[in-house]
Order: sequence, then C-alpha cells, then structure tokens
Amino acid sequence: MRLSQFHLRTSKETPADAEIVSHRLMLKAGMIRKLAAGIYTWSPLGLRVLRKVERVVREEMQAAGAIEVLMPSVQPRELWEETGRWQKFGGQLLKLKDRKEAEYCYGPTHEEVITDFARQELSSYKQLPVNFFQIQTKFRDEIRPRFGVMRAREFLMKDAYSFHLADEDLQREYRNMYDTYARIFTRLGLRFRAVFADTGAIGGSASHEFHVLADSGEDAIAFSTGSDYAANVELAEALAPGPRPAAGETLRKVDTPTQKTCEDVAALLGIPLSRTVKTIAVIGVDETGAPQFTLALVRGDHAVNEIKLAKLPGLADYRLANETEIREHLGAEPGFLGPVNPRRAVRVIADRSVAALADFVVGANENGYHLAGVNWGRDLPEPALVADIRNVVEGDPSPDGRGTLAIARGIEVGHVFQLGRKYAEAMGLTVLDANGRAATPTMGCYGIGVSRIVAAAIEQNHDDAGIVWPEAMAPWQAVVCVINPKGDAAVNEAAESLYRELLAAGVETALDDRGLRPGAMFADIELIGIPHRIVVSERGLAAGTFEYRHRRASDAEQLDRAALFARLRAS
Amino acid sequence: MRLSQFHLRTSKETPADAEIVSHRLMLKAGMIRKLAAGIYTWSPLGLRVLRKVERVVREEMQAAGAIEVLMPSVQPRELWEETGRWQKFGGQLLKLKDRKEAEYCYGPTHEEVITDFARQELSSYKQLPVNFFQIQTKFRDEIRPRFGVMRAREFLMKDAYSFHLADEDLQREYRNMYDTYARIFTRLGLRFRAVFADTGAIGGSASHEFHVLADSGEDAIAFSTGSDYAANVELAEALAPGPRPAAGETLRKVDTPTQKTCEDVAALLGIPLSRTVKTIAVIGVDETGAPQFTLALVRGDHAVNEIKLAKLPGLADYRLANETEIREHLGAEPGFLGPVNPRRAVRVIADRSVAALADFVVGANENGYHLAGVNWGRDLPEPALVADIRNVVEGDPSPDGRGTLAIARGIEVGHVFQLGRKYAEAMGLTVLDANGRAATPTMGCYGIGVSRIVAAAIEQNHDDAGIVWPEAMAPWQAVVCVINPKGDAAVNEAAESLYRELLAAGVETALDDRGLRPGAMFADIELIGIPHRIVVSERGLAAGTFEYRHRRASDAEQLDRAALFARLRAS
Repeated sequence: MRLSQFHLRTSKETPADAEIVSHRLMLKAGMIRKLAAGIYTWSPLGLRVLRKVERVVREEMQAAGAIEVLMPSVQPRELWEETGRWQKFGGQLLKLKDRKEAEYCYGPTHEEVITDFARQELSSYKQLPVNFFQIQTKFRDEIRPRFGVMRAREFLMKDAYSFHLADEDLQREYRNMYDTYARIFTRLGLRFRAVFADTGAIGGSASHEFHVLADSGEDAIAFSTGSDYAANVELAEALAPGPRPAAGETLRKVDTPTQKTCEDVAALLGIPLSRTVKTIAVIGVDETGAPQFTLALVRGDHAVNEIKLAKLPGLADYRLANETEIREHLGAEPGFLGPVNPRRAVRVIADRSVAALADFVVGANENGYHLAGVNWGRDLPEPALVADIRNVVEGDPSPDGRGTLAIARGIEVGHVFQLGRKYAEAMGLTVLDANGRAATPTMGCYGIGVSRIVAAAIEQNHDDAGIVWPEAMAPWQAVVCVINPKGDAAVNEAAESLYRELLAAGVETALDDRGLRPGAMFADIELIGIPHRIVVSERGLAAGTFEYRHRRASDAEQLDRAALFARLRAS
Repeated sequence: MRLSQFHLRTSKETPADAEIVSHRLMLKAGMIRKLAAGIYTWSPLGLRVLRKVERVVREEMQAAGAIEVLMPSVQPRELWEETGRWQKFGGQLLKLKDRKEAEYCYGPTHEEVITDFARQELSSYKQLPVNFFQIQTKFRDEIRPRFGVMRAREFLMKDAYSFHLADEDLQREYRNMYDTYARIFTRLGLRFRAVFADTGAIGGSASHEFHVLADSGEDAIAFSTGSDYAANVELAEALAPGPRPAAGETLRKVDTPTQKTCEDVAALLGIPLSRTVKTIAVIGVDETGAPQFTLALVRGDHAVNEIKLAKLPGLADYRLANETEIREHLGAEPGFLGPVNPRRAVRVIADRSVAALADFVVGANENGYHLAGVNWGRDLPEPALVADIRNVVEGDPSPDGRGTLAIARGIEVGHVFQLGRKYAEAMGLTVLDANGRAATPTMGCYGIGVSRIVAAAIEQNHDDAGIVWPEAMAPWQAVVCVINPKGDAAVNEAAESLYRELLAAGVETALDDRGLRPGAMFADIELIGIPHRIVVSERGLAAGTFEYRHRRASDAEQLDRAALFARLRAS
C-alpha cells in the first residue's frame, strides 16, 4: 500500500476525554472516530488491524471444526420471552419497535437466536456434535460507555455455540475451544491467561475467562509461576499455612494512643505487619435467623475477601456493623477492636492464616490500646470458624500445589462457558437420539471480543512514542520510508524497487511516499506501531545500505539488502 | 470441506410462503432461515456464497482505489436532523432510543455518518479525491418485507462515498465506479445491464442502476442490441419515426357496436394494431392554472408512459378525467373516444408515433362507432403538442442511434449516484483549497446490495433441479461424490485422494462423504448448484474413470484422471 493513496490521519494532540492509553493512542493514530457515546467508526488504519484479528479468529475457529454462520442483529422479543431474558437481561438490552409496533432488541448475544436456529436445523443425534460460530456486530447499552472500543456499546464479537447429546462431548468441545482460544491469542502475539471464572448472568456450570495481561486491566488475576493455574484474585483460594507455632510471649497491653491501623501499630512495636490482625465487625444471622454480631479476622498484611466471606454460614447477606452495634458489643472505637474479652458474646471467624498465628497483636477493645503476645486457646477461645476469607497475595502457594502465585492485571477478551441444557430446555430444543427418543442437547458458548482485542493489545504493547504492534496485528509488517521523494529520482527508484521486492517476498509492506519531512514521518510510523521500518535515503544509497529499525529496538542499523532481508525473514 | 463435517440441511418440501424461485430455492437448499419478517440467519451454506460475493466486491473496490472503513449501524438522530432526513426519510427508518432516551436509528444508509467522518478527517484539498467504502449490515423497515433476502429488512450492503473538490474529479470517479461495478458483476458471472436511472430520494444529479437480468425482475429494462445503452423502460426515449405518409383513405365512420379496445377494432377491421390510436382523457391545467381537458394519444400497440406525460407543460399533477368530464367534453363513453370533433374544445397531445400516422382509426365520440381513414390536418387540426409519451417497445430504435431496443426484466443490485454538494453543504463539510480558502466538496455515492445479489443470481441461474451457480459464487467449485463410502475401502481411498489432489490443484472442492444413497446425494448437489460433480464408484474405478457432470450439462461423461483435470482447468 502506498500511503499517498491511503488515508492516514494522525494527530499530535492528546485527546482530553480519553482516560486510558489504548483509547488515547487509537485516537492519536486515527484508528477510530467517535460517532456517539460508545459508538465508533473504524478508519482505514483501524480496520486493517481489526481485520487481522478477525482473520486469525476465523481461521482458528474453522481449523477447530466450528462452522461459520451469520445471525441477524435485530432479534424479536418473542424469542427472549421464551427464556425469560427479555425482562432479566437488564438495561444493557437495547429494545426497539418496528413500524408495526412489534418489539425487537439489538442482539447483545445470540443464545436465543442460535437455539431457535437449532430447532429448525437439528433433528437427529447424527448431526451432533456441532459448533456454529459467527463474527458479527453486537450492541450492549452500557450505562457508562468509556475507554473507546474497550467498553463500546456497538462492538464486533465472535460468538460460538455448540450442541451435544452427551455431557462428555460438551467437555471435549469445551477443551477444544479452550485450546483454540490459547492458539488464537498466542498467534496474535499477546501475553494472556485463561482464568477460572464465575459464570455470572449467562449461567451454566463451568467457565474460563481469557485475559490479556496489562497493567491497566480492570481485573486482578492470580496465576501460578509453576503451572497453568490462573484465577480471578477474588476467586483464588488461599491455602492454609503450616501448623500454629507454640506461644512464646505473655499477653500484654500496649499503649497505642494514635495508632489505629495495623501498619502504624506494627511500626510502633517494631514487628512485621504479618504479626498484626485486622478485626472487621459485621452483622450476619445465627441458626435461628436472628442478627449475629461477628468478627472476621485477617492478618494485617492481607485484605478481607467479601465474596468468600459471604459464602460462609450466616453471612450470605451480611453487612458491616454500625458504630452503635460496635460500641455495644466491643466497647471501643474502630481502630482498637479485637476478639479478646468482648463486652458481649460475639462470633469469631478467623482466616486460615490468622488461626495459624502465635504471639499476635490485636486491638484491646479499649480506645488507645492494643494487646500484644496474644495466643489462641490461652488468651481467647479458639475461633468459632476457621476459613479462607482473604484475597491471595503475591507469593502465596498456588492452590493446585504447584508453584507460587503471582498477581497481574488483565483485560477480559474471551470467555468459554458450559451452558448446559438451560436454553435448550427453555426453548424446547430436542433431537432424536440413537434410540429414536427425543433428547435435549447440552450447549457450550464461546465468545471473543474482537474489537476489544485491538484495544487490549495496545494496553499491553505501547511506549511513549505510540503503539508497538505484535507482528500478527500490525496494519503492515514493514514500512519503506522515502526521504525527500520529490527530490532524488534514484532514492525514489530504490524505494519503489525495495517496496516491490518486499511485497513479492510476502512481507506486507507500506511505502511511505507522502513526502513528509523525516521527523514527522518517523513520528507517524512509530505512533501507528509498524514493526519494521526501513529508510531509503540518498546517503544510504551512496553507502549501499538501508537504515533498519525494529519498533522495539532503541537504535537503527545500517544493513545491506541481503542482511535486511535476512533480518525480516528471521522475525 | 468434508460434507460429513459441514452442516448441510436441504429440504424436499416447497416452502408455502415463498413467492419467488430464489426464495424457494434458498429455503430448500437451507441457505437461510427466517428469524422474523424480513430478517434471516445465513446458514453455513448460504454464508459461503455471501462471502464469495463480498470478497469479489471488496477486491474490486480496493483495486479501484477505494479505501475500506467500518461505520456503526446505530446512528444518532442529531446527524439526521442536520440533513433534514430524520423526518423526510419516512417509515423505512428504524428509530430507537437508548437507556438515556437519546434517539438513534439503525442506519439504512450512511451519507450522514460518512460526511460527519469526513468533517473530522478531511481538512485539505491534498487529501482529495478520496473514496471510502464499507461492507456492512443495514436495516430498512420495509412495509411489506418479502421474497426472502431479495427484499429483506436487515441486509448486507457495500456502500461507498467519494469526496472531490472539482466536478470533473467526481465525473472521473463516477466513471471509475461504473467500470468497477461492471467488473464486479462480470466477475460474478452475472448477466447485467447498467441503466440510466432517476435519483429518487437520495438526490443528486446523475445516476445509474445496475440490474441483474432475470425474468422475475421487478423492473423492465430497455437496452440496445447495438450499444451499451440501457434504461428503465419508463425512462427510455422513444424516437420519432420517419415522416408522415400522405393521406390515402377517406374518412369514414365504422360500426363497432361492442369493440371498445384497439385490439378488437383492429381485428374487426382487419388492420394492424399499429394503425389504431388510443385516446386517454386527462385533466391538466392551462397557462392560467385553470383545469384543462386534455387528450393523450398513443398507438394501439403502445402504452402511455405516465412519467413522460407528467413532464409536459400543464400535466405535472394531471389526473385521469372522470366520466362526467368525459361525457361533457366528448359526448361518448370510454372505448369510443377520439380527438375528432369533440363537443367542447380540448387539448390534443399526440405521441410522436401517432403524429406520424396517416389513415388511422380512432373512436368517433359516439357510442358504438369508430372513425377510420383519419388524417391530421384534414379531419382534425394538427395536435397541440407532439411529444414522446409512450413506453418503448422491443424493436424500437435505440435512442443513441445504434441498434434497436430489446426489453428485459431486471433486479436492481447496484446504484451509482452523483450526489453533488447537498450533504456537504447541509453538514458544513469544507476543506481548504489550493489557495487556502474553505471549499465545499462534491460527493458521489455507490451502493451494492451484497445479500440481494445472492438471490438475484439464483433468479437468473436455476432450473427445475435447483440452483445453477456461476463459478465465482458457488459454495464450492467441485464436489467429489463417494458412492457407498462405508462399503468399499478402495472407493473411499480413491475419492480421498482425488479430493486432496483437487484441493492441491486449487479447485475449491467438497467431499460428499455423508453416506447418502446416490439419488438423494445427487439431488442435494444439484439443488445447491455445485458446478462440477465427480462421482467415484466401484464400477468407475474398475474402468479407470470418474463420472463427471457439469451442472449445466444434461449428461454425465466417463473421464479418466487426466481428462477430468483438463476439463476442470478449461472451465
């Protein structure tokens, strides 16, 4: 592609309303233009990248045996009533009426439509298993669309739906899709993790999220350094530490007049933060359903995990205790609370790591004081319940017993679900089994946010100068920059001939013949993130070399033609 | 593709609600499934064909220098208010509101969006000319969606929009797109015509429609057998015939008691239909604006053209005269009307071919009688106006003076417009010209109904057994049919090896390994229209031959491997 014949429109200005780097860089590079909140036009440059992603996704899905279809974006209300989701889906469902007042939605997902399609298409077990996929535009009416195409309302998605008679077949296809997703993200050149996930609103029995790792990611992911274990930090299990050491200190009351946090107390006493204990007062219910004042204890260096806490008996709908309740039960202000000698009976729940402590420090239930040298069974009863109620932290042992956990942030770009028979049952999908009896298929569903991947890749791959595309996603692999194209005919000819040679060698190449000055040209090329930059100049020609620079390299090199091609072949 | 791994779902039943052959065949072949009125899912088979069309369109648009973008389907009301089309577009515009009650439409076309994009992207004459295209889903809320994807509500369209400073640049790009469209339809293997067209609601100054020729087409097209002239029948000019012959007969009144049509009168008198004249009584206005009773005369073998009539002075809003008006002016009933001796003064407009008649026959303005041997200037005054007011017919001279006209029916699948500055002006799009002054670009727009082409191709290419795809649109070019795949290992092996050889030779091939009996398998393959069918059977293997049949051939041939490959290469 000759850039003089292309439409490239970069900007030096940093857009004011772009909060994250991918949004800023996509706007500066001119990849997208906003039409309305959460609705974007993909420019020629942006679309080239989007199509790269789309192609990799399509090729790998096809290679995995999935069969492409194309479903409509406008879906009739009747179908959504069959599954009860017309009401349940919530405000993200963009509803509309046609000229005859018939109700429709702009599809945010296609479980209903594919199940209806399957009702028409599938009648026999011989047609199963089958996995239909599409790459298609969806709309979700986000309350607060932002971050550009990262959380757009109109977006491009790959969604796939598989149908099986036997649960084992679903398991096998689920694994097939899991492996396919790994191949897709690997081929796109992205660092990613597959993460155990809650199934959320879509329902079903098992699911994994695929996250592109990036510091700006919305989700914290815990993953093992010694296995492929990965989970959302909030879901990863914190294993019990080794046995509790014997008590070594005597109980003593220490003066902590202004020290209300574990950090301050540990600093005052000169002990590690992991020897202090945080006391969180909450209200649950007891066996009879009556309100029950409860203390949840985690180490000072840990954070309580509300999801885990809520899974414990009596805490499904817990709330934080208010000041009156705290004063009534403990007699002190927050900052000085603890499980020792409460005024009234309280339930004490200790995190596994707290239960394993000896000689620890807690609030004294008296303003201005803490207790040190505290020991279970001696200074207070053993906890009523010991459980995993904290977030894992970097260095924790991996729950699968292999390696330790590292924490990274991730951007969700894919999701695989085992849906089960929920949709098939609701919509009356059956096929005849080998015995001629009607049987309800079980389903899997598998999504990839195609347009979101573009933004996620930038979050992971950028520097101060702009985007640093992985090879597979770059709009072009290489660019030939012509210095002063209107000046020297020999430079032009050499650039033209190199451009054609690269194309002939199968290198997707752009020829920057726009006639910009070198500074502006190079800034553009760096901003839009082309992996290989080759400069053709009068000086280079005289020396018989081209100036080559990889987008990730700090310096340029002078290479002759053979060395240049060898370098490109090697990449 | 192994058909055992594909999802093919044909049906023997003829769908009751499908009115045209392409709709019937697409349903029977299982290419589409209806989701709602005018909304269809494309099955794996249908999508393969749709993608073929999409790819040809994309490649030719790119080869012509157009640059691909992707605009949203959901468009804000504000943009449509800028051009006044939010109100004017009419009921086809599917309007919707998001959760914040902001108004949008599902884009039926993208003039507003691309002009808004251009406002952000284009600032200098140096960026022009430029032509942006997209292949994208659109929605038009048809009052009566029908004919399957031929007139669907949700459909796939290629739309392109070009921007130019000089009118000559627009002319050049218009011609470029015209030629590109011709290449696209030629490459798709379709018989088509480019037709002069009215611009209709989109506005602008020049346009052509591209029609796929098919007997079932909605539009009648007149095209020259001696040039590339083609026009909608209603717009094609009927040239004046040679000079009027001298009068040869005397005026006489003939008894036509029950003969009210030209056909009946011509039969009774034993004269050619072309010697009779039809009289149509209409009410227009005179120079003062007062109602004016007017007779429009066309030959008995011609049909009056209402569009042409309405272009004449005083007839812009004409209506047919009612019986009272007719009786008052002519004194007879319809069937016996004529321009000779009216009761009251009337305006007589003669079609060019009527003005060139001598010795013709008209109604006598007396019930039960006609006049024969009528001559202008002798029996009645020369007509007040001679004009082209009829539809052209087969055999008329071509308006461009080359060849004669043939009439065919066509399905509109493409449209090229010169929009001019209408949208740019309404939306305030300007760029700086070479002198640094703000100038308003002129625009072209160019549409192709991608999904409609699939149906149109079937209307043009089918027989009793099913679809007969042009090579470029076929889901596969060739199919290898295995007779009794579970029976004979040698047959299987031979089929497998032929299948792989064909793929290696670049022939897009399906292997029908579904294990159907030959009759059912062949019926499927004919129905879905694969051009080349190759049967591998035990008997053929013994003879060292394959059975080959082209979809358009009436018989199969026995060919050895070399002859088979030669045949496929030749096609």
